[in-house]
Amino acid sequence: LAHAQTEPFDLGQDNREIAQALGQAALDSDLAYEITESLTTEVGPRLAGTPQEARARDWAVEMLEELAFENVRIEPFELDLWTRGHSVYEEVAITAPYPQELYAISLGGAGATPEGGLEAEVVFFDSYDALLASDADEDALEGKLVFVNDRMVASRTGEGYGWANRKRRDAWVLAEDRGALGVLIRSVGTSTNRFAHTGMMSFPDGRRPDIPALAVSAPDADQLERLHEMGETVSITMRTYAGWRGEVMSGNVIAEITGSEAPDEIVIIGAHLDSWDTATGALDDGAGVGIVTAAARLIAESGHRPRRTIRVVLFGAEEVGLVGARAYANARMEDGTVGDHIIGSESDFGAREVWRLRSNVGEHALPEIDAIHRELQSLGLVRGDNSGGGGPDMIPLQYMGVPMVRLEQNGEDYFEFHHTPNDTFDKIVPEEMAQNVAAWTMMVWLLANSETDFRPQAPQAEASE
Amino acid sequence: LAHAQTEPFDLGQDNREIAQALGQAALDSDLAYEITESLTTEVGPRLAGTPQEARARDWAVEMLEELAFENVRIEPFELDLWTRGHSVYEEVAITAPYPQELYAISLGGAGATPEGGLEAEVVFFDSYDALLASDADEDALEGKLVFVNDRMVASRTGEGYGWANRKRRDAWVLAEDRGALGVLIRSVGTSTNRFAHTGMMSFPDGRRPDIPALAVSAPDADQLERLHEMGETVSITMRTYAGWRGEVMSGNVIAEITGSEAPDEIVIIGAHLDSWDTATGALDDGAGVGIVTAAARLIAESGHRPRRTIRVVLFGAEEVGLVGARAYANARMEDGTVGDHIIGSESDFGAREVWRLRSNVGEHALPEIDAIHRELQSLGLVRGDNSGGGGPDMIPLQYMGVPMVRLEQNGEDYFEFHHTPNDTFDKIVPEEMAQNVAAWTMMVWLLANSETDFRPQAPQAEASE
Ligand SMILES: [Zn+2]
Ligand SMILES: [Zn+2]
Ligand SMILES: [Zn+2]
Ligand SMILES: [Zn+2]
Repeated sequence: LAHAQTEPFDLGQDNREIAQALGQAALDSDLAYEITESLTTEVGPRLAGTPQEARARDWAVEMLEELAFENVRIEPFELDLWTRGHSVYEEVAITAPYPQELYAISLGGAGATPEGGLEAEVVFFDSYDALLASDADEDALEGKLVFVNDRMVASRTGEGYGWANRKRRDAWVLAEDRGALGVLIRSVGTSTNRFAHTGMMSFPDGRRPDIPALAVSAPDADQLERLHEMGETVSITMRTYAGWRGEVMSGNVIAEITGSEAPDEIVIIGAHLDSWDTATGALDDGAGVGIVTAAARLIAESGHRPRRTIRVVLFGAEEVGLVGARAYANARMEDGTVGDHIIGSESDFGAREVWRLRSNVGEHALPEIDAIHRELQSLGLVRGDNSGGGGPDMIPLQYMGVPMVRLEQNGEDYFEFHHTPNDTFDKIVPEEMAQNVAAWTMMVWLLANSETDFRPQAPQAEASE
Repeated sequence: LAHAQTEPFDLGQDNREIAQALGQAALDSDLAYEITESLTTEVGPRLAGTPQEARARDWAVEMLEELAFENVRIEPFELDLWTRGHSVYEEVAITAPYPQELYAISLGGAGATPEGGLEAEVVFFDSYDALLASDADEDALEGKLVFVNDRMVASRTGEGYGWANRKRRDAWVLAEDRGALGVLIRSVGTSTNRFAHTGMMSFPDGRRPDIPALAVSAPDADQLERLHEMGETVSITMRTYAGWRGEVMSGNVIAEITGSEAPDEIVIIGAHLDSWDTATGALDDGAGVGIVTAAARLIAESGHRPRRTIRVVLFGAEEVGLVGARAYANARMEDGTVGDHIIGSESDFGAREVWRLRSNVGEHALPEIDAIHRELQSLGLVRGDNSGGGGPDMIPLQYMGVPMVRLEQNGEDYFEFHHTPNDTFDKIVPEEMAQNVAAWTMMVWLLANSETDFRPQAPQAEASE
């Protein structure tokens, strides 16, 4: 019956009307905007493992209880703390051929310079690939500073980020192995701002860098590039204080709307509570906290209780390596409830309009996701493919087999602000945020009121004809 | 003969053809762009009175001699040095009700906090006018920090700047007189960037502040505004090191193309060599240095020597109160050559396209300025009125009676970058800069080849009919 597969899925007239009413209520609500304003104003920067992140958890518990969520709780976990060690500024300057201060910032996980700082010559690499290919002269980096000059490409999907991030994550390993005293990279991000983009490095097999590693703002990277093109030997001095500080506590904040008919079936929606230290984390990810919380609350206050439980998880320690997401998934492995997670999704890409719905569900469930997309279409959404993820904090659950959907936001200018001091509340447009909440509210309602198992189904014996 | 006044002025066919050829050569040249690149790359930030400004003078002399200018010389003058005293960063943070670091920067001329810093409550004023009107309770500012929250309006003419600048220039006097421990202002400038806009304060009767005075970035000013609107009492801690450091030397750099027929008649074109300490001063005013130098050089290399002398003056110490411009004008008073200055103009408003020609000349000369405008019209220029100035460094000469013209640039986004760390070379668009140079080259040629005295003429007895 090939015909049956293309027949539109029927969400049900009542169900659709409730969804549409919820969407309209979301467009008329400024709850998400207010939540994000409150978090950024009353907590501000909240680096994973710091007292500020603990304040964010307390803030979240109070906020979720005020909004009448059920089962509000903190699930604590341990974390190795890394901090910059000295305000949010780093001291970096060109000393030769032309002295000039640079605007730069340590990457997450970096080591510090020796006390009193260091000065060394720069070895210039056009790209991370050029660094990888540069093993001809094994001693060329000994006692030097490595600079890697890749540029990021801006796009709606933000897909230039992963590529540009290779140098941020991995350049230090090669540099340190070959005796370099430190690593500098052109700031990841698409901005021509003097602020550089921070972010966590990678630690293969748990190894951590002893050397400092910093991002240099784009205009300052331009300066290094110009000096290199002039054929000049460039020397840089720097003094930084970054390092690992030992074990501390972090935690995830969890709240629920208990399902009416299938309370053990969980639609999990998330965002992360921590931010980088240089900004108030309005776009990353205060906006997500506002959007998913408001979507759940709008459903709770509609008078229509969904079949399934909606679980809001505000993850801790996302920025430093999905530590909260891993802790959550591991805890669900231990209590045996991974299989209760019917489907998951996260909002963690700013607050610009949602433009695409992607999914990662079993083939049999595609007509239903397509039907959900049709309900959201008037908000300006296209239907993406079925190879998506749910967002960074959904990765561990997705590895464990939990199906995912994602409402993708326009990321064209996300990396103008992301992980820099400019990620502040004024960058959020209330109308765009309300469109997000509308899409989320409708989608979450329809998923939480569904009876479908979205996991890929084992092939069944063909029905007899 | 009323008719004669509206008859178009005839610039002469040859003269016009030379002007048009010069304009085309300018559009094809990247000399201005290269000069600005060299200044920002090889000198960088160059605060008035510092060794960096001295390096800029040496750079300028070498550059002007390489370009075969005549009479290249430095005219030194004395200057009281003010510096920030501690890198380009200031330590400012909200301590209550919600601790959060602020991005702020001392205003030029400000005092420092006591050693070890200070902490005080904030008294919030919506505007500078509100501060002015607030004398009801004389003791309300005693021991407090004054915050003034005016916003600047962006516009093509940049005319919102003067209005927004009142708080920067003058708020400290009232605050200090009433016992305040310091002044904070919302950053002048139109940007939502986390960098705050610096700039010089006013010193009525030579009085200088003992208290610190800082600009707070717009997103941080938003934070103070939100806390104020919540009814919270806000406390701020700060530690700054700014102050006056005593007498040092600065200087103007002068170069000429000697006129063929009237070498003592001077068309003076200027820009300023100094910049603020936080940026490389590409737009303010490296671009002006490039534009006026390139315009003069394009004339010099054309093979057509103008009647009059073209004098390029790269002023020192503009940012700190037109110190170089005053020194230049006073020196011309002393050597009796103010009257030789036929007309003046400066480029000091970035590098966006020129869109308007304004003037300040005698009525009799308007038809000629109108004719010059017609030659430039194809570059996209409108003709402004006759009440303009020549640019900041032309003010002292204009007071002394020197006529002025000005090629006004589009300033819509100038104050996104101006006086912040973001004023860097990458913000200049080569094609827009070349359009500037074309307009300048044509205008300067036509003025330098004119025989007209542009000063207002004493009324003459009517000719007998
Ligand atoms: Zn994030
Ligand atoms: Zn992030
Ligand atoms: Zn200027
Ligand atoms: Zn200026």
